[in-house]
Amino acid sequence: MTFQDQARAAKVSATLLRRLDRAAKDEALRVMADRLRSATGEVLEANRADLDRGRAAGMAEGLQDRLALSEERVESMAAGLESLAGLADPVGEVVRGWTTPQGVRIEQVRVPIGVIGIIYEARPNVTADAAGICLKSGNASLLRGSSSALESNRAVIGALRAGLADAGLPVDAVNLVEGGHDITDEMMHARGLVDLLIPRGGAGLINAVVTGSSVPVIETGTGNCHLVVDADADLAMAEKIILNAKTQRPSVCNALETVLVHSEIAAEAVPRLVGALTGAGVRVHGDERSKALDDRVVPAGEHEYEAEYLSLDLAMRVVDDLDAAIAHIRQFGSGHSETIVTDSLAAARTFQDSVDAAAVLVNCSSRFVDGSEFGFGAEIGISTQKTHARGPMGLAEMTSTTYRLNGSGQTRLG
Amino acid sequence: MTFQDQARAAKVSATLLRRLDRAAKDEALRVMADRLRSATGEVLEANRADLDRGRAAGMAEGLQDRLALSEERVESMAAGLESLAGLADPVGEVVRGWTTPQGVRIEQVRVPIGVIGIIYEARPNVTADAAGICLKSGNASLLRGSSSALESNRAVIGALRAGLADAGLPVDAVNLVEGGHDITDEMMHARGLVDLLIPRGGAGLINAVVTGSSVPVIETGTGNCHLVVDADADLAMAEKIILNAKTQRPSVCNALETVLVHSEIAAEAVPRLVGALTGAGVRVHGDERSKALDDRVVPAGEHEYEAEYLSLDLAMRVVDDLDAAIAHIRQFGSGHSETIVTDSLAAARTFQDSVDAAAVLVNCSSRFVDGSEFGFGAEIGISTQKTHARGPMGLAEMTSTTYRLNGSGQTRLG
Repeated sequence: MTFQDQARAAKVSATLLRRLDRAAKDEALRVMADRLRSATGEVLEANRADLDRGRAAGMAEGLQDRLALSEERVESMAAGLESLAGLADPVGEVVRGWTTPQGVRIEQVRVPIGVIGIIYEARPNVTADAAGICLKSGNASLLRGSSSALESNRAVIGALRAGLADAGLPVDAVNLVEGGHDITDEMMHARGLVDLLIPRGGAGLINAVVTGSSVPVIETGTGNCHLVVDADADLAMAEKIILNAKTQRPSVCNALETVLVHSEIAAEAVPRLVGALTGAGVRVHGDERSKALDDRVVPAGEHEYEAEYLSLDLAMRVVDDLDAAIAHIRQFGSGHSETIVTDSLAAARTFQDSVDAAAVLVNCSSRFVDGSEFGFGAEIGISTQKTHARGPMGLAEMTSTTYRLNGSGQTRLG
Repeated sequence: MTFQDQARAAKVSATLLRRLDRAAKDEALRVMADRLRSATGEVLEANRADLDRGRAAGMAEGLQDRLALSEERVESMAAGLESLAGLADPVGEVVRGWTTPQGVRIEQVRVPIGVIGIIYEARPNVTADAAGICLKSGNASLLRGSSSALESNRAVIGALRAGLADAGLPVDAVNLVEGGHDITDEMMHARGLVDLLIPRGGAGLINAVVTGSSVPVIETGTGNCHLVVDADADLAMAEKIILNAKTQRPSVCNALETVLVHSEIAAEAVPRLVGALTGAGVRVHGDERSKALDDRVVPAGEHEYEAEYLSLDLAMRVVDDLDAAIAHIRQFGSGHSETIVTDSLAAARTFQDSVDAAAVLVNCSSRFVDGSEFGFGAEIGISTQKTHARGPMGLAEMTSTTYRLNGSGQTRLG
């Protein structure tokens, strides 16, 4: 089957999906979960084949870890599908509504987008997550996983499609897209067949899709996240938030990468924070001013302010004032999550009004910027672009809207 | 000044615009309106130069009409800016908000997008409209008008920028982008400088921007709009709505292009509707079945179902049933506005649940699908894409959102 045939079949299934009520979708998700559980043996066998192939080709250990499945991981994928069944249906939600002077009733209602393509890297658990989120929001999915996870993805998608068939839904609602780089290129130019593309993975993948696609794309985020220690900061609070945001899970996009310290509080703050950070195993890369205040600081070059370390490394800079901190964030920030720690109401307001990012935080950890912490129940990624969706994307962000106009013969007068 | 310099200046001004309160923006709009009124003489002189150049180059009369300004048109541009000052500010609107179990308060708030590029064809009145809508929503604008309107646009933008200066705002909030096709190409690839591009004009322009741009684009619409006369239709109502939707203003995207008649009612409906339409000067291009019912019908080829006539022409087809009508719309519709006339609640519901378009109407005219009829007070176009905004776009659609998190030291636990 060519990609075009596959996409056309997905589009046909999407016309059926958009009319399903919640009960039908939830039942399908539960049957898919059952089928995935029953297929645990095949999935793990396929995963071993991927891992063997990867090791033979010299795959890095970190990638092997991300690729590796276990009984627990398959169970967690199945449980994820079941938990989607417990969430409210975004389709049909009336966003707003009003009646015109002539008596035409207008409602703006959430509807499925149609066919969503997801291009992602090694983790096979994304396969079940993405398929489930798309199905729950009434969308057909074209899942373009990494070639290194091909056997695993085939086994997972085989189980999910068997579940769809058991539930009486079209199997083409969920599709694995196989083939070389030319197929990714076809996906990016399948206007009229693919309604939206979401790349999930490293900056290279995301950039290639965002710049190369003529299908609308949602850019999911690299996170170069900053925290400003204001002159009026409670340093105990700053220390606690910085440690949490940097060390709780350093490899994710909402982890902290740079601390900007207001010069008025630097003499006290820098040694205290550097001490706490180095004590927690964090290497602090600082500018001249912070290094002068604590010699555990290693020198930072300007390129380090651009780095998304995703490791136990942190950049530190002493800035003259709040405006300088905001200017630094404007220059180096990736528009993900930016934080200030301050007791000053004026500083908090200036910061939240001035900084242009998906999330702007006062006195709490950037680790909260996440679909599960937001209570969305499911997350397809965190958007760092400004159109369609910005910040954590749950089920509602996987919908479009339509205007329904209901009249009784009205015509336009002027 | 190169385009890059101009875009950078716009971006700097956008950081100031995002912090303006409503009063400052409204005052600027009023001063800009005054300056435009005072410049009426210069604007009309520049417009005459454009028209002379156009006539010398053999510009079509229709284009000349769209290019031509008059005292009344300039006054209406100025009044448009003043009416924007009377609209609520979309920036700062809290879309939703909640408190997490740990007590972090989360608000999703509307913020400006940043720098918006608008690429449009001959009408110079779009220049003032677009500049005003962008300013009111806190965005800087890069306005890429047609070369045929260059002198007019220079004069209009000169007046608007003088108004910005008088009001103490950065003049780079509103910019005319001049130069050849290579500049349009630069706009389409100015990632990091231009946040959003909106093409307004014919299908060729829109398609070129949508497929060629790596900056996010909102596709504004070509409208191949259908109306279904259901078996249970009130024919008097159908006739009235069809005449309004086809003839009130045939050249716009929400005008009706195709009527699909349910076979059960065709013998009565076709002659009645064809009679009314031909009586109103409309040429009806029909399939064999409708032609057999009324010989005033001229034969339609399949390509005619794809046509956006934008004239006093209409395609007509007799369909077996509602499903066939929906299938026709799925095949030929442009996703703009689709209507059913019916007294059947079941048919109305099936139609609104099945048809995938920006607006789906029951028993009223597609001419209502318009920002002013929706009560938006201003409209930048009608989106026919499914992401970001769909349907008429007012001030709210010219914003992004940000999440503001306010805590008191909370850190993430798990």
